[in-house]
Amino acid sequence: MDPETKLPNVPLRRRTETVAEFNQLPAHVYPKDTKRDGKGAVSIAGVDLADIAAEYGTPAFVINEDDFRARCRALANAFGGGERVHYASKAFLTKTIARWVAEEGLALDIASHGELQVALAADFPADRITIHGNNKSLDFLQFAVESGVELIVIDSEQEIARLSEVCGQLGQTQDVLIRVTPGVHVDTHEFIATSHEDQKFGFSLSSGTAYRAAVAAATARGLRLRGLHCHVGSQVFEASGFALAAERLLGLWAKLLNDLPDLEGFDDTSLANFNVLDLGGGYGIAYMPDQEALDVDEVASDLKEKVAKAAKTAGVPKPVLNVEPGRAIAGPSTVTLYRVGTVKDVDVSEHATRRYLSVDGGMSDNIRPALYEAEYDCRVANREVQGEMIPTRIVGSHCESGDILVNDALVPDDVQAGDLVMLGATGAYCFSMASRYNMMTRPPVIVVSEGQHRVMVRRETIEDVLALEVDPS
Amino acid sequence: MDPETKLPNVPLRRRTETVAEFNQLPAHVYPKDTKRDGKGAVSIAGVDLADIAAEYGTPAFVINEDDFRARCRALANAFGGGERVHYASKAFLTKTIARWVAEEGLALDIASHGELQVALAADFPADRITIHGNNKSLDFLQFAVESGVELIVIDSEQEIARLSEVCGQLGQTQDVLIRVTPGVHVDTHEFIATSHEDQKFGFSLSSGTAYRAAVAAATARGLRLRGLHCHVGSQVFEASGFALAAERLLGLWAKLLNDLPDLEGFDDTSLANFNVLDLGGGYGIAYMPDQEALDVDEVASDLKEKVAKAAKTAGVPKPVLNVEPGRAIAGPSTVTLYRVGTVKDVDVSEHATRRYLSVDGGMSDNIRPALYEAEYDCRVANREVQGEMIPTRIVGSHCESGDILVNDALVPDDVQAGDLVMLGATGAYCFSMASRYNMMTRPPVIVVSEGQHRVMVRRETIEDVLALEVDPS
Repeated sequence: MDPETKLPNVPLRRRTETVAEFNQLPAHVYPKDTKRDGKGAVSIAGVDLADIAAEYGTPAFVINEDDFRARCRALANAFGGGERVHYASKAFLTKTIARWVAEEGLALDIASHGELQVALAADFPADRITIHGNNKSLDFLQFAVESGVELIVIDSEQEIARLSEVCGQLGQTQDVLIRVTPGVHVDTHEFIATSHEDQKFGFSLSSGTAYRAAVAAATARGLRLRGLHCHVGSQVFEASGFALAAERLLGLWAKLLNDLPDLEGFDDTSLANFNVLDLGGGYGIAYMPDQEALDVDEVASDLKEKVAKAAKTAGVPKPVLNVEPGRAIAGPSTVTLYRVGTVKDVDVSEHATRRYLSVDGGMSDNIRPALYEAEYDCRVANREVQGEMIPTRIVGSHCESGDILVNDALVPDDVQAGDLVMLGATGAYCFSMASRYNMMTRPPVIVVSEGQHRVMVRRETIEDVLALEVDPS
Repeated sequence: MDPETKLPNVPLRRRTETVAEFNQLPAHVYPKDTKRDGKGAVSIAGVDLADIAAEYGTPAFVINEDDFRARCRALANAFGGGERVHYASKAFLTKTIARWVAEEGLALDIASHGELQVALAADFPADRITIHGNNKSLDFLQFAVESGVELIVIDSEQEIARLSEVCGQLGQTQDVLIRVTPGVHVDTHEFIATSHEDQKFGFSLSSGTAYRAAVAAATARGLRLRGLHCHVGSQVFEASGFALAAERLLGLWAKLLNDLPDLEGFDDTSLANFNVLDLGGGYGIAYMPDQEALDVDEVASDLKEKVAKAAKTAGVPKPVLNVEPGRAIAGPSTVTLYRVGTVKDVDVSEHATRRYLSVDGGMSDNIRPALYEAEYDCRVANREVQGEMIPTRIVGSHCESGDILVNDALVPDDVQAGDLVMLGATGAYCFSMASRYNMMTRPPVIVVSEGQHRVMVRRETIEDVLALEVDPS
């Protein structure tokens, strides 16, 4: 792949065209066991969504526990062990989720002091935790080392010195990876291979800073270099980007294996421990019916084969392969349930009208459409709908015209105030990025499993907001 | 102004070029009484920002109470009375802020059930509250009417029926405005006059739906039509847009004054009360040194004159003029204080390097750069800095490459880890849109006034996050 080559990654979106199609539920977008019954009502894991709405109100996140756990297991199987698969906390983290991840035998990626606090509050085993971040504070590093985390991914020169200082004070040795920017970017829209990366994370491979950082880490007191890390993008549908990144990293890997033993201050017994290649995450999921999630079995076997081959070519032992799928586990497990409030037809030109369906949530519970132009699939959850398919925009209740959840869909024209609308695949980066904009407090997260439902996270209230305020005395 | 005419609204950004310029503090971007002392330390209202950082930690919002109050008074003076100036809660609302707004005699805009709860918790007088929103629930409408709010801005046909039903049940009469989309958009980048508006708010003027909604409201039981409302944009630097919108609205106004008395069900004694023209907000503020805030005195006298003239032309009595500046009050009153963690130079091409300064907040406390490509000015707050001005990006600590606070600035190259950086004009839409992404909990809001400091909102903790979670029993 030449530098700067761009390949189209995803086809143009095809919309749901007919009412019959609209009433069907695309299984690859919604959680496992999402069904419409004979009366038209939608259930997940045997729980009627109208019952959820009646009991807990709307908006609400509904997460299918069995779907989440099954995806954990599928990834563990594909990559040859749960300890190789690091769930990315940033996608969606609660104590309950940390426990599910632990119980399924996966490892955990943590990107902040707060995420580590939540994970440890759930008794997540520290020796299965990897720490990320471009700006880890001294306090965070100390907390991580004291807690006994397995790996810290080094992201800056300063961090090597800081971590060495922390390890010295604590009298501990910390295993580390070096975050490398390999010059490979893949995202939904394009695949770019380049030498320079204008971003805050990592050490550049091409400029030699990654090599120098690895040498510095390998010889720093209190640090033990365990391997290399990279991350090529988010919502990736183009698996070849991972393989290219692996190939590039293994060039550096071979050089390090060759050079490290000769370095002053390098502990030769450590060389056998230099064996982790972490290729990050970003596995694409199907937000829309015409998308297909990246096949994790295919990616896993492809990556294992290519890493083995690249290692052979480079003349180095085959490294252990770690991956970090967050969205691919949490994303499809969850839907957001809203109730339609107002229905308004707006003339958008002399000859065209757009229907605006307002729901009782919005950019506070899902900022992704406004932030990334992210697309979501929407369906009516309480009944089969009829009528004509018309251009429709699903908008929230915020006092902002950019408060859009689904920008451009075809939706049957008999959707009415009071209907329940669900958006699919909202498990990743929705609750975790939720705000209290317009004092619309966070929705609850409701777990469904085997016909039962329970609260994982309760709805926030204005009392929660007011509790932070200190009245002047 | 012809339909579809676009005028450039703002000049291209000029960057701070020299170290001397960087050490100066542009008075129009930072709160009143922001000063650098002889030793280089920055204070606001006599309080050293390094002391704030030492006592409360970073990141932290620092709000100058006197600045906020002075802007309230300036707007009240410009528009002939505080009751004409409606502070927009969505920009930044706490009980304390609601009290300041009340004490300065201003009115309050509310856009959600939650905002109304906060305002009433602060004992804000309900008869100075106007209610907005495209999707007000029955509960919210009932709560608003029962609370005795002055005005509800009607945004959909369904709302007329709902509100009439609520008023009937409560045996109350509610004053209302009709939200009109006049086909005038002004924002930072362009001014558009058109007939069609593809947005969720309001009733279209050109299609006649605004007229029909006004007639429906005027004759609905329990509703009393008090006037018309519109909103032309955000961060507006082009005052003529307001006047054009006013002119268009007054055409509808004249037609209604003429037609209403003949309508069946219209109470003639109400005609004298049809007297409010609310032209919304969106007054631009200076985020960057080369911007000048919209001059509120100029806008006010211009608007008053143009509305009087348009009313005369239309042959109608001059309406009362309401305005809704939120950002123009809260925005410039506040800075966000961060501490620099890591400093990294990244090759962005063969010949160019960019410095990345990582600070201890990010897109969780200020989503606007990521969401709107908003620009902010940054300065070092703890000392005068020296050295060469180099291309610099200020980034946060989130695990996301788009976590950027200042995309492209020139910053002296001796800024170091441990330095305090402040971003100016962060009072509007930063705290109010804050999230807990990556479990980076909300910063505190610290009030400074006459050499004193106190906590308005305390820092959120992980305990606050965990308190929402329900452990499975």
